[in-house]
Amino acid sequence: MISYRLESDSFGELPVPDDKYYGAQTARSLINFAIGDETLPKPLIRALGVVKQAAAQVNMEFGLLPKALAEVIIAAASEVAAGELDHHFPLSVWQSGSGTQSNMNCNEVIANRAIEMLGGEKGSKTPIHPNDHCNMGQSSNDTFPTAMHIAAVEEINLGLLPALHALKDAIKKKAIAFEHLVKIGRTHMQDATPLTLGQEFSGYHTQVEHGIRRLEAVLPALYQLAQGGTAVGTGLNAMAGFDVKFARQVAKITQFPFVSADNKFEALAAHDALVEASGALNTLAVSLMKIANDIRLLGSGPRCGIGEICLPENEPGSSIMPGKVNPTQCEALTMVAAQVMGNHTCISIAGASGHFELNVFKPVMIYNLLQSIRLLTDGCISFTEKCVDGISANEQRIHELRDRSLMLVTALNPHIGYDNAAKIARKAHQEGTSLLEAALALKLLTKEQFEAWVVPEKMIGNSDDKA
Amino acid sequence: MISYRLESDSFGELPVPDDKYYGAQTARSLINFAIGDETLPKPLIRALGVVKQAAAQVNMEFGLLPKALAEVIIAAASEVAAGELDHHFPLSVWQSGSGTQSNMNCNEVIANRAIEMLGGEKGSKTPIHPNDHCNMGQSSNDTFPTAMHIAAVEEINLGLLPALHALKDAIKKKAIAFEHLVKIGRTHMQDATPLTLGQEFSGYHTQVEHGIRRLEAVLPALYQLAQGGTAVGTGLNAMAGFDVKFARQVAKITQFPFVSADNKFEALAAHDALVEASGALNTLAVSLMKIANDIRLLGSGPRCGIGEICLPENEPGSSIMPGKVNPTQCEALTMVAAQVMGNHTCISIAGASGHFELNVFKPVMIYNLLQSIRLLTDGCISFTEKCVDGISANEQRIHELRDRSLMLVTALNPHIGYDNAAKIARKAHQEGTSLLEAALALKLLTKEQFEAWVVPEKMIGNSDDKA
Amino acid sequence: MISYRLESDSFGELPVPDDKYYGAQTARSLINFAIGDETLPKPLIRALGVVKQAAAQVNMEFGLLPKALAEVIIAAASEVAAGELDHHFPLSVWQSGSGTQSNMNCNEVIANRAIEMLGGEKGSKTPIHPNDHCNMGQSSNDTFPTAMHIAAVEEINLGLLPALHALKDAIKKKAIAFEHLVKIGRTHMQDATPLTLGQEFSGYHTQVEHGIRRLEAVLPALYQLAQGGTAVGTGLNAMAGFDVKFARQVAKITQFPFVSADNKFEALAAHDALVEASGALNTLAVSLMKIANDIRLLGSGPRCGIGEICLPENEPGSSIMPGKVNPTQCEALTMVAAQVMGNHTCISIAGASGHFELNVFKPVMIYNLLQSIRLLTDGCISFTEKCVDGISANEQRIHELRDRSLMLVTALNPHIGYDNAAKIARKAHQEGTSLLEAALALKLLTKEQFEAWVVPEKMIGNSDDKA
Amino acid sequence: MISYRLESDSFGELPVPDDKYYGAQTARSLINFAIGDETLPKPLIRALGVVKQAAAQVNMEFGLLPKALAEVIIAAASEVAAGELDHHFPLSVWQSGSGTQSNMNCNEVIANRAIEMLGGEKGSKTPIHPNDHCNMGQSSNDTFPTAMHIAAVEEINLGLLPALHALKDAIKKKAIAFEHLVKIGRTHMQDATPLTLGQEFSGYHTQVEHGIRRLEAVLPALYQLAQGGTAVGTGLNAMAGFDVKFARQVAKITQFPFVSADNKFEALAAHDALVEASGALNTLAVSLMKIANDIRLLGSGPRCGIGEICLPENEPGSSIMPGKVNPTQCEALTMVAAQVMGNHTCISIAGASGHFELNVFKPVMIYNLLQSIRLLTDGCISFTEKCVDGISANEQRIHELRDRSLMLVTALNPHIGYDNAAKIARKAHQEGTSLLEAALALKLLTKEQFEAWVVPEKMIGNSDDKA
Repeated sequence: MISYRLESDSFGELPVPDDKYYGAQTARSLINFAIGDETLPKPLIRALGVVKQAAAQVNMEFGLLPKALAEVIIAAASEVAAGELDHHFPLSVWQSGSGTQSNMNCNEVIANRAIEMLGGEKGSKTPIHPNDHCNMGQSSNDTFPTAMHIAAVEEINLGLLPALHALKDAIKKKAIAFEHLVKIGRTHMQDATPLTLGQEFSGYHTQVEHGIRRLEAVLPALYQLAQGGTAVGTGLNAMAGFDVKFARQVAKITQFPFVSADNKFEALAAHDALVEASGALNTLAVSLMKIANDIRLLGSGPRCGIGEICLPENEPGSSIMPGKVNPTQCEALTMVAAQVMGNHTCISIAGASGHFELNVFKPVMIYNLLQSIRLLTDGCISFTEKCVDGISANEQRIHELRDRSLMLVTALNPHIGYDNAAKIARKAHQEGTSLLEAALALKLLTKEQFEAWVVPEKMIGNSDDKA
Repeated sequence: MISYRLESDSFGELPVPDDKYYGAQTARSLINFAIGDETLPKPLIRALGVVKQAAAQVNMEFGLLPKALAEVIIAAASEVAAGELDHHFPLSVWQSGSGTQSNMNCNEVIANRAIEMLGGEKGSKTPIHPNDHCNMGQSSNDTFPTAMHIAAVEEINLGLLPALHALKDAIKKKAIAFEHLVKIGRTHMQDATPLTLGQEFSGYHTQVEHGIRRLEAVLPALYQLAQGGTAVGTGLNAMAGFDVKFARQVAKITQFPFVSADNKFEALAAHDALVEASGALNTLAVSLMKIANDIRLLGSGPRCGIGEICLPENEPGSSIMPGKVNPTQCEALTMVAAQVMGNHTCISIAGASGHFELNVFKPVMIYNLLQSIRLLTDGCISFTEKCVDGISANEQRIHELRDRSLMLVTALNPHIGYDNAAKIARKAHQEGTSLLEAALALKLLTKEQFEAWVVPEKMIGNSDDKA
Repeated sequence: MISYRLESDSFGELPVPDDKYYGAQTARSLINFAIGDETLPKPLIRALGVVKQAAAQVNMEFGLLPKALAEVIIAAASEVAAGELDHHFPLSVWQSGSGTQSNMNCNEVIANRAIEMLGGEKGSKTPIHPNDHCNMGQSSNDTFPTAMHIAAVEEINLGLLPALHALKDAIKKKAIAFEHLVKIGRTHMQDATPLTLGQEFSGYHTQVEHGIRRLEAVLPALYQLAQGGTAVGTGLNAMAGFDVKFARQVAKITQFPFVSADNKFEALAAHDALVEASGALNTLAVSLMKIANDIRLLGSGPRCGIGEICLPENEPGSSIMPGKVNPTQCEALTMVAAQVMGNHTCISIAGASGHFELNVFKPVMIYNLLQSIRLLTDGCISFTEKCVDGISANEQRIHELRDRSLMLVTALNPHIGYDNAAKIARKAHQEGTSLLEAALALKLLTKEQFEAWVVPEKMIGNSDDKA
Repeated sequence: MISYRLESDSFGELPVPDDKYYGAQTARSLINFAIGDETLPKPLIRALGVVKQAAAQVNMEFGLLPKALAEVIIAAASEVAAGELDHHFPLSVWQSGSGTQSNMNCNEVIANRAIEMLGGEKGSKTPIHPNDHCNMGQSSNDTFPTAMHIAAVEEINLGLLPALHALKDAIKKKAIAFEHLVKIGRTHMQDATPLTLGQEFSGYHTQVEHGIRRLEAVLPALYQLAQGGTAVGTGLNAMAGFDVKFARQVAKITQFPFVSADNKFEALAAHDALVEASGALNTLAVSLMKIANDIRLLGSGPRCGIGEICLPENEPGSSIMPGKVNPTQCEALTMVAAQVMGNHTCISIAGASGHFELNVFKPVMIYNLLQSIRLLTDGCISFTEKCVDGISANEQRIHELRDRSLMLVTALNPHIGYDNAAKIARKAHQEGTSLLEAALALKLLTKEQFEAWVVPEKMIGNSDDKA
């Protein structure tokens, strides 16, 4: 038996479950938007709490909001920011494109929670009014994009960047451990000149390193906050200076260097900074797709594939094939990569579709962006811990394949020229012999020359680094 | 206090919460794949239940599975299919790319539930073994894609198609209601020759109608089931004829005309049928984006936009602008459209990335496909009921704009030629006069001729349909 | 020294090269749209010629266009349709979004060519006027989408479908030739139970076969022609029945079953039929990506990869590695596939972006669609002739790998159960022994049983198909 | 009558047109890749010339390449770089995925041109050999990606960035010119609080400004050159230090700060830097889509749209509607934006699809990237000159709409509270009266108060900036 109270908005009264802090506009939104089961992501709810906390603080400092009210609003908003009131935020991603209803959800929850703290009656809007006090000097149009930036910044800084650093370090360790394992290189999926397994992993290391750099490069645009623009970017109904003080307050709460956006019209009407951030995530997904693909190819087998590395065996791999073990962490990560690439298309389309003073694809943009960040974060942690850390080299297999390769012939170019070297390689290939046999048959060089010149270990660097 | 029992798989023992039916492989997967919070969609869990139910039935008919065991497996699988055991399916989308762990999750749940029905001990694998009995004649590699097709078919047929029919009918009603309202047409966002508001809506009607046709066209490929291919498509460890009998059984359970796939190698290694289905959803999203955009543009205002139609007012639209009402249903629907278009990119990339005998992007493909279907379903229902049904025409505004338009001049082409008509239009435009005034000033025709020829009501069909 | 004549449109006079048939509007467009070097594709120019030819014929039959004029217009339009006047069509893809300027380009070329045939003066618009005669009863808004459909239909039917049939047949031949070659299967890139190389290719065959079916399924929507809708879909300034007669005329000229679109408002304002067609091309690209990827993986080596098949050696593969040969046809085809998938995103965004009575992304849509069709056509022909036709099996390698595989253990499931079979496989894997050795050491079965049960040749079909 | 000479590569002899400098490998590629008609973009051909010029210089400095040979190679390569030999580069984009054939095309052209300069016989490979001399110390695998970076850097720096600065400046001028025009704001397509037309344009200005910043941010990764990695990244057959000297030489030739890539394995196997660059172009496309859409919406009409601005009238807009003028520059630019977004999907998929030591989607990546850069460059120039520069404000229309808006009520919030203000707005809306009338009827304030508080000119900034 749930009991209800009546709450009202400008459209009239609606029953609201009595154990919830939200009010009429939230209840109305639940009726109007019964679409899917995706609710607004928790990091965004937290960020809305931070926004309300900071706004109340600044409004109090301006003398607009009485200290007594401001303090309870701040207290209630802190609870939102701490995730303590998450179950009072039931709204769908698929709502008003400005996130208006989630902003009101937050205003209503804070108002009622604050009223409760003060011993008042929930739904009375007294002495705390969701619009006049909790939303003072604000509009959904600046609040919601501000929360989007705060959430993205926190998730990137506290989640994804540390996960990427861990992955980078794990790959680095492998690159060092495999530094001296000379193996066959492969280009076009075909045998090529040798390199070390460590060199191969160093490429992955650089990819992740650049991924970190790319991600850091998108942060400055995300540090710019729309707050203070209010309804259309002009700042109507906010005090002059509210924007700057607000950003400073958010920086204080979050410990990230937020600033007020240079141009509030752009900050409401376009979300290019989110598209930009998604672009960095897309590039990261592209990198991870390559890395995970390579790793499962290198680990393919165990007996009929390439098998140069062994991946950790984490679980039974088949419901029908006994003993089968699969590169499941690579699979999870490549699925994440595909998702992030798809999310990027969605974010780009949504970002391109604003009109005049407002982009009304805000919830779908932040839903996709936060999903991409979260999946990359968790995906990288899992891939690092359950896969990369446990990779070992199959040295026997590496040597076996390396010594078979016809592309060792490349070392002969500077000595006998490309055309002669090609003759040796093609003869050996067609007749199934070794390079040495073919070379001698063609009388292009002596056995001694061959053995001096064709040394895989000398082929992993510049020509004159050798010997 | 949760109590645990020990269960084992070929990798060893693991504690499992005692109130859950799942076993060691599910528990292991929870440890290995702590990525995101997206779990496999419920329609897929139901479909796995249907698969296990049908397989047990056929195995019993073949005499491979003793009747006593088969009957409890069928009973337990029916509970899965009915959604009664959903909370025993905790696994992430981001797992093995074959969905192996979710197939095992289902095998384990059914085995333990069946054991329980028989009074046995959960985790004992006796007398029902998750692999040997529940998975009999099956592999994850054919089971999971079979479940993907079943889930997609049910969601399309039971959810999306009815929702589209309702939307189509709602638009049709408007098209009829607005049949005689002659209004200005707009091409390139610029004033053009007139048409009726009903004609305008008839275009939307045709778009949805084609959307239904496109969706129906992808069903035959989805009716083809992979089951019977087992591990790599050969059908090893399944009886000859298992595939056909199985499909028949699924058709019986679901009441949809499933058949066995012609080629099981294709059915495991590629999921082109899902990419095809996603293509139809993408086209639908494209259509809905156009329709919802038009409707919000036509309803823009109330005083400073186009304002030819009025949309239902569903909720307060702004936390700062009192009295504002927004086209929020259009916004939710266009956000859904962007999501579906992004999901399509993901599904396409995933579909292109199979290797050899298996595509290992199965969970991400079905997660995106089912999300697209669900969102389009709910989005269309919401849009129909909360928006289209309530649209009314603003006749006063329609007439006001129509009579202002310079493009009525087009009716003069057959009488005075394009070049002369252009002179009239440009003169009126540059001097801010009416067409009649400009025409008379240019002495290109008489007032009587003008009034006989330039009649908006006669411009909404072929030239000779008039008068 | 190029000489110029002066031509005029409603904006004034412009010099036009005297050796060109186009007029002022084309010349003006060249000035206004100096963007990129992509001109409208030739199949579209041809289709515009077909449109003008058919329209003149119908207008003559209606008695609107004097026979003397109609005949020269038809003659000139036929030259356009035959590709004889292609160098008179210089306009960029990046022009008016309705293709208006290309429609006028066509009107101007036909008018001037017809005037020339009649001995008149180019640019005089006498006795043939580009708008009043060549464009009679037409608008760019119906002409251009009509031409888009005609071009797409011709390119698909005359180019892509035959190319796909050839590819399908070539794959089929290989599937038959390789029917008895039992090889290791691979799932998750890991060794799995065996199948024949022919079975593997049969999967590719089915993929292409479905691709053909998907493509044929999009034709009916493309057969629907917008012509007769004129400016906004109402048919203003066209005779009643023009649309149907026109479509019949186009069907006669092209020999494809074109019909008049049911709803002209949809046909001008949305291009869902092109998005749908692009969806089928996208699915095809997805299929070809899988097939080409598999083929280069199967052919990887020659000595250090999988090497189960040999691809034709078409050219030297490296400027530095002598004797290297690469799967370049696979590379060209997968690049084509990536392009088609990208084009699909473009077409989808463009298709979603129409407003009111017109979609003004027409040129970019048809440019991408025709590029996709052309590249898939040529790519498939090249891939068939230069790669598939020449594929041979490396039987020695196939046998060598097959007999090594631990997954042959799957055949033991029905005899000793999954758990016991798993013990054998894991023991063999960990100790590097054969399955038989492991089985005997575990005392789970006898040598005779093993040899009776574990027979790759019996593992390529259902359990009871064997022996 | 074309005459032919015979040239040979390791696969044998082929006829080559005698008026062409290319050799057997180019001729062979023309036979093997008859796909589409897209040839490698000219900026890439130029870049290959720069590469060969720089490599010969460095090889000469190392004493590997005799000065006499080096000097003619440099001379011939300079001709390639200057675009003088473009018609000797006929190869398709759809070739070897490493661009090997285009690298050989360049080697062959330079060798034959150099031989010709020295009075030798084309095709003789004496005294200049395409591989041994022109390709000395190089592989296609490092040469081609080096050329990709050079081409992208030059096109961005010399084309796109100047075009964006011009667009930014043009918008800035309008923002200043329109600084005092107070107009209705629009959010959700609905009337909102006022702002100035200059403020609206300032948002576009900021978008382009950020676009420039984003583009500049991708340059450092593009400045990193792969050259020196040779076949697989190890630098085999190149001298130690070749890479650094080479990059310095390219910097000298191009005047851009190129450096040698930190990690050559990454530079060959992944093209994340191109995906990153494409991401910046994608964000730019998103920005331009918003800007161009807004501008055509603001300019919609002339009589039945929003009509707050007038766009330059560049050409007749319709073949059927006389006097019609359309926002064609907006249309061209939004089509470009859609293309760039599609190209980004292609580039991302291609970038994710490398294997081991090489990404073999190089030609398709650079073809799309350079097309995106070129189209954005030309599109922005055209949009600036043919549209933005000529935009004027329709002041009469702006005032008319502004004074009608109900959202001026927002100014009352701080005085009478949100709920009361909402009552006024809704009453006025429902009864079709002015805000003042509704306010007085509700007795919520006096006429004097209303006139003091509701002043559009005071609503375009913070609350306390006013009066």
